[in-house]
Amino acid sequence: MDDEGRAYGRPVPDFDHDLVAVGPGTPGGELLRRYWQPFARSDEATTLPRTVRMLDEDLVLFRDGQGRAGLLYPRCCHRGTTLHYGKVEDAGIRCCYHGWLFDTVGRCIDQPCEPDRGRHLERYRQPWYPVVEFGGLVFTYMGPPERQPVFPRYDIFEDLGDDEELVVIDHFAFGGPVVAPCNWFQTHENTMDPYHVFILHNAISGPQFHPDLRQWPTVDWHQTPDGVMSTQVRRLSDGRTLRRVTEVRVPNVRIVPTPTLTVLGRTNNMSWAVPVDDVTTKVYAVVRKRRGEPAQGTAAYGDGRTWFELSDEEHQRYPGDYEAQVGQGPVTLHSEERLATSDRGVSMVRRQFRAQAEIVAAGGDPVGVAFNRTDALMTVQAGNYVTDEA
Amino acid sequence: MDDEGRAYGRPVPDFDHDLVAVGPGTPGGELLRRYWQPFARSDEATTLPRTVRMLDEDLVLFRDGQGRAGLLYPRCCHRGTTLHYGKVEDAGIRCCYHGWLFDTVGRCIDQPCEPDRGRHLERYRQPWYPVVEFGGLVFTYMGPPERQPVFPRYDIFEDLGDDEELVVIDHFAFGGPVVAPCNWFQTHENTMDPYHVFILHNAISGPQFHPDLRQWPTVDWHQTPDGVMSTQVRRLSDGRTLRRVTEVRVPNVRIVPTPTLTVLGRTNNMSWAVPVDDVTTKVYAVVRKRRGEPAQGTAAYGDGRTWFELSDEEHQRYPGDYEAQVGQGPVTLHSEERLATSDRGVSMVRRQFRAQAEIVAAGGDPVGVAFNRTDALMTVQAGNYVTDEA
Amino acid sequence: MDDEGRAYGRPVPDFDHDLVAVGPGTPGGELLRRYWQPFARSDEATTLPRTVRMLDEDLVLFRDGQGRAGLLYPRCCHRGTTLHYGKVEDAGIRCCYHGWLFDTVGRCIDQPCEPDRGRHLERYRQPWYPVVEFGGLVFTYMGPPERQPVFPRYDIFEDLGDDEELVVIDHFAFGGPVVAPCNWFQTHENTMDPYHVFILHNAISGPQFHPDLRQWPTVDWHQTPDGVMSTQVRRLSDGRTLRRVTEVRVPNVRIVPTPTLTVLGRTNNMSWAVPVDDVTTKVYAVVRKRRGEPAQGTAAYGDGRTWFELSDEEHQRYPGDYEAQVGQGPVTLHSEERLATSDRGVSMVRRQFRAQAEIVAAGGDPVGVAFNRTDALMTVQAGNYVTDEA
Repeated sequence: MDDEGRAYGRPVPDFDHDLVAVGPGTPGGELLRRYWQPFARSDEATTLPRTVRMLDEDLVLFRDGQGRAGLLYPRCCHRGTTLHYGKVEDAGIRCCYHGWLFDTVGRCIDQPCEPDRGRHLERYRQPWYPVVEFGGLVFTYMGPPERQPVFPRYDIFEDLGDDEELVVIDHFAFGGPVVAPCNWFQTHENTMDPYHVFILHNAISGPQFHPDLRQWPTVDWHQTPDGVMSTQVRRLSDGRTLRRVTEVRVPNVRIVPTPTLTVLGRTNNMSWAVPVDDVTTKVYAVVRKRRGEPAQGTAAYGDGRTWFELSDEEHQRYPGDYEAQVGQGPVTLHSEERLATSDRGVSMVRRQFRAQAEIVAAGGDPVGVAFNRTDALMTVQAGNYVTDEA
Repeated sequence: MDDEGRAYGRPVPDFDHDLVAVGPGTPGGELLRRYWQPFARSDEATTLPRTVRMLDEDLVLFRDGQGRAGLLYPRCCHRGTTLHYGKVEDAGIRCCYHGWLFDTVGRCIDQPCEPDRGRHLERYRQPWYPVVEFGGLVFTYMGPPERQPVFPRYDIFEDLGDDEELVVIDHFAFGGPVVAPCNWFQTHENTMDPYHVFILHNAISGPQFHPDLRQWPTVDWHQTPDGVMSTQVRRLSDGRTLRRVTEVRVPNVRIVPTPTLTVLGRTNNMSWAVPVDDVTTKVYAVVRKRRGEPAQGTAAYGDGRTWFELSDEEHQRYPGDYEAQVGQGPVTLHSEERLATSDRGVSMVRRQFRAQAEIVAAGGDPVGVAFNRTDALMTVQAGNYVTDEA
Repeated sequence: MDDEGRAYGRPVPDFDHDLVAVGPGTPGGELLRRYWQPFARSDEATTLPRTVRMLDEDLVLFRDGQGRAGLLYPRCCHRGTTLHYGKVEDAGIRCCYHGWLFDTVGRCIDQPCEPDRGRHLERYRQPWYPVVEFGGLVFTYMGPPERQPVFPRYDIFEDLGDDEELVVIDHFAFGGPVVAPCNWFQTHENTMDPYHVFILHNAISGPQFHPDLRQWPTVDWHQTPDGVMSTQVRRLSDGRTLRRVTEVRVPNVRIVPTPTLTVLGRTNNMSWAVPVDDVTTKVYAVVRKRRGEPAQGTAAYGDGRTWFELSDEEHQRYPGDYEAQVGQGPVTLHSEERLATSDRGVSMVRRQFRAQAEIVAAGGDPVGVAFNRTDALMTVQAGNYVTDEA
């Protein structure tokens, strides 16, 4: 029995805090806060308040009687009862305890137990964040107000025809559960890791997507001004060539053309890896589609069942993205990694994220934010491109 | 979109440790330990040992074969097995592991595995606290023995007629659950916050108590030697006047006449906010009543149902004391509060509690403790007083 | 009411870290790591990977297609996904994420996404521990490789007849649950505490083992070169004498002849207290028996039922080893103990364990490890010996 490589005496592992921490004041958390971030579906903003967590902050989302969505700090600025139990009215949300009323941007507009219902209402403001609704999602900007960018435009979602619509898919990333109990970054960097498609989604678990993805491709990555792009070229069985392009954009946009290959040409969707807190991640996708048609297929497991139909043992036998990424632990331990040739895309995503976080920490504006509507167009290149070239 | 009052960059919140901590050695914990405190119902003291938590200490309550209640530190002073598994005998409780026998005040009276069944029994004492039973409750004194006051008398509970009795109600405070997962102080100070009755219990959730309490009153507070008293005067629909008086006494007595107004005149009940630990609170009420008659009504929710019949969504729509107080968090965050005119009673309760804790920390005796039976009478003024004055 | 011995103001309790900590680098943990330790049943090593915890380390156990058991650190040395989701093949286990393949001793033998399937495979080694299977158990050695002893022989298990077999019993120690939520040492030292048999297993809960054990014995202990031995002599009702001998061996072997007295003479079994982590313990026994015959009886509770058939109240009324040992807390608090005459065996076990841990900390080899097969025989003396002497 040889003595090499025993588990005895191995060093205490560690992770790269700057990549994974999302709370206020952390390098990554401050970078993420410089962008509009989706945190809920629009249909979750109703007159029944909803407590949501985003970037390690608890907040209350509601929609007032006039249809305006509001996102407030939960603890009423008077005596601290959560607005989760608040009563939503036409003009805002009223705390259940003493009835202070706040509008969707936190302005206090009534204090019924105070003399004259509040003589200095202007001195009270419930902490708030701005919201924008787009494509079925509610976005917020949680950064410093003086650095707030305009809400971006996405070229693949512009000029919708009358028969087209944008819809939200929130079970896209993990093939089953909407929320994964692991850090967002290990989920995000998976997008620039095209090799796992052949192993995890084919060799290990049988084909979970389109069978053509089983072909071994030529893979390449290159840096773009605001992200990383990967191209995977496969010769198809009919002699044609599939050029599959995927993208990530700083900080947490991921653009993955549907792996079931039901949509060819430029992609019809983009996604956001949503950091709920340091150990919880949700992924929202917005998909452009024709009204009345299905959005897109999902991964299949084992004999074609959905993720939820598998037993614990079957999840071990047919793992997917959820198992592989959650299986890296609540936060993966970077000190134990041995990155190899096939991990070049992962390294590029990390390097760029760290560099942009440093720009923010130094007082600058990160890549991809725009302060006027004209500059705010994001141009997408990702897609499944099939050509006749051999 | 304006830039003011964003949730971004708000300071890290904090709470007033001296108000909320109840463990040994904390200012508030030591003040609470200078008084007899109820911690269980008398019918919970049986020959089956019961583990209870009080003031952040775990203890075992039992009743020996002679009917005496005992309250001991759980870990047997021999080898540390909990007396929760002890066997109760006529003379005390016997540890299950090696059979050491302790009486209700912790004296070791048998060590069956030792020579001569223990040659130095007097050297062993299981840590203990004294108990007194009153009104269906078991009280203990957990402070320094040399400062132990006599057990108080309460004038509203004296001279019971033959057809009268004292009964315990332990679901009084929260309108449903007996135990609330929050600090005791935010529960206690609610007693001096009469304004929430109009908002929480009427405007927000519909009338949860007597409809007359929906009237807007004139509210006043004043300091008493050992507490704070609030008077709320309402003109009733029949032209008469309701003067409702509520009290708190240092450190954790609360005297709230029944809000269902089923008892007029001086109150028939008083309560204790029982600090189980820093984040758990139980409230016991003792009620004087005629035998055979019901004790008093409870709060109604929504369409008159009990708390336990409501769904999560209905608890959001019809919140009560439980939601408002637990909704302040496990420990409310005082640094974020904005106390206003209507919170004067709350401020008075806090100020007095802090002052009394300082007296104890400086080596003195706090207000309201008596060392002889004559001085130990507590006189109650709280009540629902209806008069003909306009 | 007297003032002595109140629970007020008692010192903050503490435990002896060196006795209880089992993690890497702790004195006791390093001593335990110098011996082969059982951690699973052989039938738990299959082609479906199984995550096990041992000595506060998480590991993955599997059996490859050639029947070899392997024990690896769970996080793949490439990108950290747990091998719990690995695919077991003839040659080893393949990580689900990117397909790196490791044999049972951690050697990397394939990297399918790397050029030439890995040009420097010899540079990669998944951290591993060696395993040996014996008596239906899987053992591992988790210490420094250069100090690895040969796997020991146990004289009571040698020279099996054709009609004999070794079987595993894993519910032996606690009379019910296989795993107990408490530190291993308080379970282990119980073996040298024969007095509790009369109290716990007889006087308190009624006879849980053979009724003859109800007799009060003469008890003695003596140190052996590698452990502690206890002899309990009882005069039986038929005039004969029962000499019951129990042993512990450094660090965590316990040899307890069956207390149901179904086996007389030298014992047919031995056990290991398995430290899963600081607050979790499992006990494995290996029993030598004739094929086709039952292994041995288990403890009876109340009216002869098994542990699992009792309610919470009945567990209070009929406690057994599980209640007494778990009832000492997750880790017993040594600072509060008052060891007495009857605890001499417990003291001896602790003293010897500490002394051996010091030897290891000073760079030596502890007692009972052998580096060649000849020296590796453990001779057992424990048994239930009945003689005619009066």
